[in-house]
Amino acid sequence: MKKIVVIGGTGTIGKEVVSVLRERHEVLPIGSSSGDFQCDLTSSASIEHLFSKIGNFDHLICAAGKIHFSPLSELTEEDFYVGIQSKLMGQVNLVRLGMQKMNESGSFTLTSGILSRDPIASGTPAAMTNAAIEGFVKGAAIELPKGLRINCVSPTILKESYERLEDYFRGYVPVPAWRVAQAYVKSVEGAQTGQVYHVDR
Amino acid sequence: MKKIVVIGGTGTIGKEVVSVLRERHEVLPIGSSSGDFQCDLTSSASIEHLFSKIGNFDHLICAAGKIHFSPLSELTEEDFYVGIQSKLMGQVNLVRLGMQKMNESGSFTLTSGILSRDPIASGTPAAMTNAAIEGFVKGAAIELPKGLRINCVSPTILKESYERLEDYFRGYVPVPAWRVAQAYVKSVEGAQTGQVYHVDR
Repeated sequence: MKKIVVIGGTGTIGKEVVSVLRERHEVLPIGSSSGDFQCDLTSSASIEHLFSKIGNFDHLICAAGKIHFSPLSELTEEDFYVGIQSKLMGQVNLVRLGMQKMNESGSFTLTSGILSRDPIASGTPAAMTNAAIEGFVKGAAIELPKGLRINCVSPTILKESYERLEDYFRGYVPVPAWRVAQAYVKSVEGAQTGQVYHVDR
Repeated sequence: MKKIVVIGGTGTIGKEVVSVLRERHEVLPIGSSSGDFQCDLTSSASIEHLFSKIGNFDHLICAAGKIHFSPLSELTEEDFYVGIQSKLMGQVNLVRLGMQKMNESGSFTLTSGILSRDPIASGTPAAMTNAAIEGFVKGAAIELPKGLRINCVSPTILKESYERLEDYFRGYVPVPAWRVAQAYVKSVEGAQTGQVYHVDR
C-alpha cells in the first residue's frame, strides 16, 4: 500500500489511472479545480503549496498540461510558451520540488505524447514540448537521489477524444484511456527508470 | 552561389561551417558581439532587427545558444529557462521570423546536442533543451511553406572543447569541429528535411 499522487487525476487518462491504482494503493487525485486537492501546474508556488498540504508520498504521476495548437505560420512566441509553462515546466517543477517530499525508492511518471515522433499539421509546439519532456526524463533519471525513478508515458490520440479531434488525426489508431493507464501502472509498480513508454496500440 | 546566414558563425563550430561554405557561397557570419552583423538570440526583437538589415536569403544555420549546467538537486526554475530562452526559443524564433525572409527551396539547420539521448550528470537542462529542438524540427518540417526544409545537427563533445570539459564527458569520444561542420553542409546542400544528424564519430 503506497501513497500515490495523481496530478490530472480527474482527467480522461487520470481517472483510469486512479481507478486501477486504487485497487491496491492510497491514491490522491489532484485537479486544477476538482480532485482531493487543487494545483495550478503553471505556477511553482501552487505546486509548492500542494506539496506542503499533502505531506510525504511514494509515487507521483502527472497526466496534465496544456499545449497550444496552430499552423506553424500563425504561431507567436507566446503560443510556444503555453506548452513550455504548463506541460513542460509544470512537470519539471513537480519533479524539482517533489523529489524532496518523495519517500525512498519512489517514482515520477510524466506524460508526453506521440506528436514528438509522429507529427501532425498545427502540432509543432506539441512536437517540441513532448520531446522536451522525454529529454528531461532521460537526463533526470541518472541523477535522482534516494533510489528514485522517473519515466514518461507517450500516448497516441485517445479513443475518448477521437471524435472531437479526428480531422487532425486521420489515420492514427486511437487507444482507450484504460490501456494508456496500464503504462503508468508499469512505471509505478515496475522497476525501470529513464524510459519512454509509447502507447500507440 | 547561395546567400547563407550563419548565426554563431564566429564560434568553434560556426567558424568551420563558414569556412567550408564560403568556397561556393556568399556567407554571412553573425555573432552576439562579432561577425558581419550582431544578434541577441534571446530576443525576438533583436532577431527581427537582424532580418530587417540583411534582406532575403537562401539558407540559415544556427550554431549558437546557451544552456545552464548544474546537478539536478540544485537546479532552479530559472536555470531551466536559460536554455529555453536562448538555445530553444532563440532557434524557434529564427525559424518563425526567418521563414518569411527565406527564398523558395531554402533551408534551416539548427543545433541540438548529444545529451538528449546520451545524458551526463549536471546535464538535465541540456537533455531537455536539445530534445525540444529536435521535436520542433520534426514538427516544423511537415508545415514549412515554399518548399523550405529544416534539419538539426546533434554533435557530441568537440575536440576543441574537450580539455576544458573532459571531467564531465569521460568516455565520450570527441569529434573535431570540421567534421561536425560537414553535417551542416549536408543539410544545406542536400535535399533531406526533418532529420537529426547525429555527429558522434
